[in-house]
Amino acid sequence: MNFHISEKMASLKPSAIREILKATSQPGIIPFAAGNPAPEAFPVQAVAEITADILKNQPIAALQYSVSEGYPALRETMKRFIAQHDQIGQPYDDLIIVSGAQQGIELSAKVLLDDGDTLICENPSFIGSLNAFRSYHVNLVGVPQTQGGIDIETLERTLQQNPRTRLLYVIPNFQNPTGTCMSLEKRKAVLELAKKYDFVILEDNPYGNLRFAGEDIPAIKSMDTEGRVIYCGSFSKILAPGIRVGYVCAHRDLISKITVAKQCSDVHTTILSQMICQRFVDDYDIDAHIASIRKIYAKKCALMLSELDKHLHPAIQYTRPEGGLFLWCTLPQQVDMLEFCRKAVEQKVAVVPGNAFNAREEDPSSSFRVNFSTPTDPQIVEGAAILGKLSYEMLEAIPAQR
Amino acid sequence: MNFHISEKMASLKPSAIREILKATSQPGIIPFAAGNPAPEAFPVQAVAEITADILKNQPIAALQYSVSEGYPALRETMKRFIAQHDQIGQPYDDLIIVSGAQQGIELSAKVLLDDGDTLICENPSFIGSLNAFRSYHVNLVGVPQTQGGIDIETLERTLQQNPRTRLLYVIPNFQNPTGTCMSLEKRKAVLELAKKYDFVILEDNPYGNLRFAGEDIPAIKSMDTEGRVIYCGSFSKILAPGIRVGYVCAHRDLISKITVAKQCSDVHTTILSQMICQRFVDDYDIDAHIASIRKIYAKKCALMLSELDKHLHPAIQYTRPEGGLFLWCTLPQQVDMLEFCRKAVEQKVAVVPGNAFNAREEDPSSSFRVNFSTPTDPQIVEGAAILGKLSYEMLEAIPAQR
Repeated sequence: MNFHISEKMASLKPSAIREILKATSQPGIIPFAAGNPAPEAFPVQAVAEITADILKNQPIAALQYSVSEGYPALRETMKRFIAQHDQIGQPYDDLIIVSGAQQGIELSAKVLLDDGDTLICENPSFIGSLNAFRSYHVNLVGVPQTQGGIDIETLERTLQQNPRTRLLYVIPNFQNPTGTCMSLEKRKAVLELAKKYDFVILEDNPYGNLRFAGEDIPAIKSMDTEGRVIYCGSFSKILAPGIRVGYVCAHRDLISKITVAKQCSDVHTTILSQMICQRFVDDYDIDAHIASIRKIYAKKCALMLSELDKHLHPAIQYTRPEGGLFLWCTLPQQVDMLEFCRKAVEQKVAVVPGNAFNAREEDPSSSFRVNFSTPTDPQIVEGAAILGKLSYEMLEAIPAQR
Repeated sequence: MNFHISEKMASLKPSAIREILKATSQPGIIPFAAGNPAPEAFPVQAVAEITADILKNQPIAALQYSVSEGYPALRETMKRFIAQHDQIGQPYDDLIIVSGAQQGIELSAKVLLDDGDTLICENPSFIGSLNAFRSYHVNLVGVPQTQGGIDIETLERTLQQNPRTRLLYVIPNFQNPTGTCMSLEKRKAVLELAKKYDFVILEDNPYGNLRFAGEDIPAIKSMDTEGRVIYCGSFSKILAPGIRVGYVCAHRDLISKITVAKQCSDVHTTILSQMICQRFVDDYDIDAHIASIRKIYAKKCALMLSELDKHLHPAIQYTRPEGGLFLWCTLPQQVDMLEFCRKAVEQKVAVVPGNAFNAREEDPSSSFRVNFSTPTDPQIVEGAAILGKLSYEMLEAIPAQR
């Protein structure tokens, strides 16, 4: 039978890009397209110890229904954690535990956006968030990024053109997909614009703890004195993504609405996962663990960069990230980026075509995303060589095509 | 600052009833208002063994990102489980793992309903589902239940009055809050109406395995040959609710849309929870475990009924459930039900006022919901005596008020 699908979900169609992404999970593929943390970064032993202890001494608490706001001890722990690590927390703020930052983003959109309201994002931006926004049928507008992050002039012009802008979505640290950071000046400018044009900033910070070079830049939320910023954090990159735990810190009026939305969505986040996170932060040396993860990614990123430096055609530009999981490669405009990605997959190296991250997927892109956390070191070496060879083939073919 | 809240979420307001519910979590309160499974029904030892084994032998699989459709082994296990236990599964069907049946219900609404579309439910019905529907700003219409379930004549009249009806939400087994079952005749009639008026049935079956008396009645989904029924099941009552695992079986065209919606919502369900469920069903004797849970609830229900029989004023009517967790008490119309519930809480017995379960909360109700799975046996004895005393006080006061 033919089903009537809601307008908001009917517009979310599988795309050609997702088909390419599907191919990337085939066995034998070098996974530069993924976004998985490195398995060696998981504190397996600690999780096993904590879990055994919880199931021995507090089994009923771990298995029974719990409250939608989250495990009270973890909420307190995370309030302390972001106060210490990110100088976040105003008297009017509250914090809810969610099933990964993805849920924090989705629920924020649900709470704040009516059909047709405008949400502005960096262009390109994280596809998972963009799809969450699309699933509420909002007017999604991307603003390009220049040196140091989102282009402030274009952002202001976009705000003038879209008076129903409710939300600006940004990933200021090691942005997905570009791997770059928003400068302090731009963070301040964005906050000023939020006051001037009366919108809320959704600050997504899954990678902030993964800085392996350079200096930390204050979170936008830490400079906010009005409650205009919703801050989303995650355990996916500092502990493990499979346990699905994230958190949202925002003005208590927003958290209370997000709590109602969460109750409708999944009642509460897996309580065992929440208990594991609380114990891990409170009873283990979380800072030492984060330092060890940073070392892993620093090494992997350096390897990826040195191999790309060695192999890629010099006309290809790429970011040199100071943290996070991704770098962003840009081909000369004459090269067909989708064709490049298709040929790369044929040769067993998967990368993500850049237009997958556009606010409007149909807009052109000359870039592709490369992940360095998922592949093993030998895969990085092998994959970079394959991409390098392909880059010479395709770039040297250009004059002949003219 | 004042936040602009979306229309769909702004309309979801905390109510007077929720305030009463808050009081019910105070210490010292006898919890007839809850809906928690009995803790003694949790297979604590098995969960601890399985979890230790997973974290020893498959830690990376348990901690890494996974696919939105769910852990493949659990999907296969649950397809087999519902085929064997409920005769469910057509060649066109597929199955997705969700974060509790609540999420299956919420995502089904998101996928199928546009703003203002009509969703019909039994009146009264489960407040968690009703709020999920409200959070999509749908036209929620309740149809009263008579002997053997939803009133078919009123349902058909309601369908004629609401041509944009997309979805009928029903809990055919041990309905929440009434504790009653829909008869086979009514299940068939509902399916015929779905064909005639071209809508989809959302069949929520969290309690189906908890039958402790009488005969099983086939699921509506088992009689469906067109793919008109979305079937939601849950591990909350047969294993534990804190792990947040449920499943949805429906036509693959709907499952593929629900999968996209799930990816936007929380990427995937906690993978450790999914692995625990798969091992528990496949490696342990799930049928023996379900039989043991049924025994617990049969005993608790019998105790509750015998104590209510002993103590309640004979003018109060209540259902005698053959399974599930709840029974439904109805006061004579002259008694103020909300006043009764308020006085009960003052005397340390929490029950849920019936209008909390109405499609329109402002509609009157003379009933309240009583849960027998959460309170201990001594609490059942004590609480029933308190309700009994209160019932005599309030009922004997009626003539004096005239």
